[in-house]
Amino acid sequence: MERRGPAAPGAPGADAVREELARLHAVLIDSGLVAWTSGNISARVAGDRFLIKPSGVPYDRLTPESMVLCDLDGHPVADDTLKPSSDVFAHAYIYRQRADVGAVVHTHSAYATAWAARGEPIPCVLTAMADEFGGEIPVGPFALIGGDDIGRAVVRTLAGHRSPAVLLRNHGVFTIGAGARDAVKAAVMCEDVARTVHLSRQLGEPVPLPAADVEHLYDRYHNAYGQ
Amino acid sequence: MERRGPAAPGAPGADAVREELARLHAVLIDSGLVAWTSGNISARVAGDRFLIKPSGVPYDRLTPESMVLCDLDGHPVADDTLKPSSDVFAHAYIYRQRADVGAVVHTHSAYATAWAARGEPIPCVLTAMADEFGGEIPVGPFALIGGDDIGRAVVRTLAGHRSPAVLLRNHGVFTIGAGARDAVKAAVMCEDVARTVHLSRQLGEPVPLPAADVEHLYDRYHNAYGQ
Amino acid sequence: MERRGPAAPGAPGADAVREELARLHAVLIDSGLVAWTSGNISARVAGDRFLIKPSGVPYDRLTPESMVLCDLDGHPVADDTLKPSSDVFAHAYIYRQRADVGAVVHTHSAYATAWAARGEPIPCVLTAMADEFGGEIPVGPFALIGGDDIGRAVVRTLAGHRSPAVLLRNHGVFTIGAGARDAVKAAVMCEDVARTVHLSRQLGEPVPLPAADVEHLYDRYHNAYGQ
Amino acid sequence: MERRGPAAPGAPGADAVREELARLHAVLIDSGLVAWTSGNISARVAGDRFLIKPSGVPYDRLTPESMVLCDLDGHPVADDTLKPSSDVFAHAYIYRQRADVGAVVHTHSAYATAWAARGEPIPCVLTAMADEFGGEIPVGPFALIGGDDIGRAVVRTLAGHRSPAVLLRNHGVFTIGAGARDAVKAAVMCEDVARTVHLSRQLGEPVPLPAADVEHLYDRYHNAYGQ
Repeated sequence: MERRGPAAPGAPGADAVREELARLHAVLIDSGLVAWTSGNISARVAGDRFLIKPSGVPYDRLTPESMVLCDLDGHPVADDTLKPSSDVFAHAYIYRQRADVGAVVHTHSAYATAWAARGEPIPCVLTAMADEFGGEIPVGPFALIGGDDIGRAVVRTLAGHRSPAVLLRNHGVFTIGAGARDAVKAAVMCEDVARTVHLSRQLGEPVPLPAADVEHLYDRYHNAYGQ
Repeated sequence: MERRGPAAPGAPGADAVREELARLHAVLIDSGLVAWTSGNISARVAGDRFLIKPSGVPYDRLTPESMVLCDLDGHPVADDTLKPSSDVFAHAYIYRQRADVGAVVHTHSAYATAWAARGEPIPCVLTAMADEFGGEIPVGPFALIGGDDIGRAVVRTLAGHRSPAVLLRNHGVFTIGAGARDAVKAAVMCEDVARTVHLSRQLGEPVPLPAADVEHLYDRYHNAYGQ
Repeated sequence: MERRGPAAPGAPGADAVREELARLHAVLIDSGLVAWTSGNISARVAGDRFLIKPSGVPYDRLTPESMVLCDLDGHPVADDTLKPSSDVFAHAYIYRQRADVGAVVHTHSAYATAWAARGEPIPCVLTAMADEFGGEIPVGPFALIGGDDIGRAVVRTLAGHRSPAVLLRNHGVFTIGAGARDAVKAAVMCEDVARTVHLSRQLGEPVPLPAADVEHLYDRYHNAYGQ
Repeated sequence: MERRGPAAPGAPGADAVREELARLHAVLIDSGLVAWTSGNISARVAGDRFLIKPSGVPYDRLTPESMVLCDLDGHPVADDTLKPSSDVFAHAYIYRQRADVGAVVHTHSAYATAWAARGEPIPCVLTAMADEFGGEIPVGPFALIGGDDIGRAVVRTLAGHRSPAVLLRNHGVFTIGAGARDAVKAAVMCEDVARTVHLSRQLGEPVPLPAADVEHLYDRYHNAYGQ
């Protein structure tokens, strides 16, 4: 049932995406979401391909040129590129299954990963969480790196939710978006709400948000917010 | 019972306030009070109007010119401006009801919002808190965005306290001040004391401050501190 | 029994101390020990005087010239200076009582103040703490600002300990040193160990350090460390 | 049974290592692993010697030239150098015992030291931890500074584990690596996982990772990751 359609119409050119990915990887660092060389961003480009961070390269050496162009099986298109992120097959699987996804972010950001290590979803008890995630941030199963298992865990878990973020047990966070900036925003907001709800739970129980209020907030945010 | 009096006497000119708002939004970022595009500051200007952050614009693109001039109903005065913050009606309501308020700040700063998510006021157990807030930081009800509900929750909750900061349940923080710098100071100090009292409560119970000492500290701070 | 002896022999000239105080106030900010205009440093200069931060001036506007020269009663020596920190009388009292003290630092740093709010000393369970503090960091009583009460609480509490740092209940931290850099180091290390011991206690009980080991570490650190 | 063999073949020249050590000490600061002058890095150079941070010198004054060249007994090779770190004998012991170790890092990073203060190893409940550490991060006994005790505690505790990081009770962290960058990476990742597992444990119990999965992850990371 894998989707291998034509290039997403309107997918941006590779050069613009290379620039954007270099810039947004710096946002991961500045936002405190990644340590050392962990974490990665990819984004779809025209021709059923995507660009992704190279494996194990320090953040301060990431350039637009260092991003690795891969096909939807996760293999580099050219022979002379750097090796792609070791998470490349998870990204590839998500792009194959979800034509609507234009970008994927993966981090081990601390508060979100703390929930993931317990296998606990983050309950929706903040208006900012209802806005961005439209409900809880779900947690998928543990999956081993290297094949389709992680991608499958992400896609299946997201299927039942409108959250653009998913936790994987004992592992970390994946987020998706129409573009790279959306997916990075989801990763930043995921850690922000993971932290606030963690802090709130340390001293008692947060008050639940009624489903109707979550609905109202999500709807308004996705229709009235921004320029 | 809404107040629609003449322009506050001595309200500063719009150009100076635009500069100050751009500068102070950077303080929200530098102080770690906001994530992505969340949070906003507004300030009253002459002629029963106020300036406010535009909706969903990244902090590093906020300029003096991007601030949106609104009337006291929360509607932009000109047709060619950016859309104002989606919290604009809460700010407008506060300005209509409180002639003494010259500026409003709204954040989801993590420690303060953690108290807000539990619906708990922050008890006054620190001299720094007695200085700035003169007692507990109160918590108002949950209110939906979009109309007067949030503004009303802020104004009603502040009425019974001399704190310039109020928590809204499951949401975040609003602060008020005579000028924008005062309201930002209240937002910074609110998060600072929210964090310290949170940390203190994690390992036991803070010692209460007697009301007479709170009185003494508040009075002295508001009469003897500063230049 | 107040000491009003001749100027401490070898006390540095006022100009050099002004420069150092401006530089070290920036260290308080960079180390995350202070919020907004809170916190202050003073240092003794020749002629039974001391220099101290002005009251309520933003950290980014502190210059060597803005430091206020005071006599040992805490009164500015010249008429045309800024007003000294509202904590000036606490600093003055410490200088009058302790001829060995050349500098005083005061902060509300969050972890240390969290212990202070509970009225709990920080137990000595880390080698770094034995090195710098030679035992627990003690906690003194609550005292009101404005007269000698805070200074007296600091001096009396420190008398029974060799720690250069003391917590004051519901308030914050005072540290002392031969020079300003020593007192700032004590403030930085106080927050560092306050945080580490806090974190350790959150998940169980730290192992106590035997008194003989604390003795050994303190002795070695004060005789063999540094250049 | 101390090893005093010939210079490790291929050990880099002292000048390159001096530059690298100066650069990597800045990484300790930027990563928040050290306070004031605490923490230190050393690296082996040709001729059975190693370079190490000088004692008590502020991080912003560390230059390539200030690094102190020592023999494998921990004594400076030249008379006119700065005094080496007071931890020099621990580093020396490790180099004497472990021919495979090219660099050593020591910190009191807060979360890792919080585990160390309780004498508790950090359990391996994160994929990132299995990748880098191949199991738990073990904790060795308390040992006094000044002789071989700390070095011996490090070497003995590491012997039973493949982790490049070890906690010492009531003290802090030591990490080892083939080169300085590896040892610093281990110190950064040690604090990162110490923090995430701490946060996870605050609200419940992390799900254990089966040994076979840890094995798979460690093996893959050490054979397939990076360029």
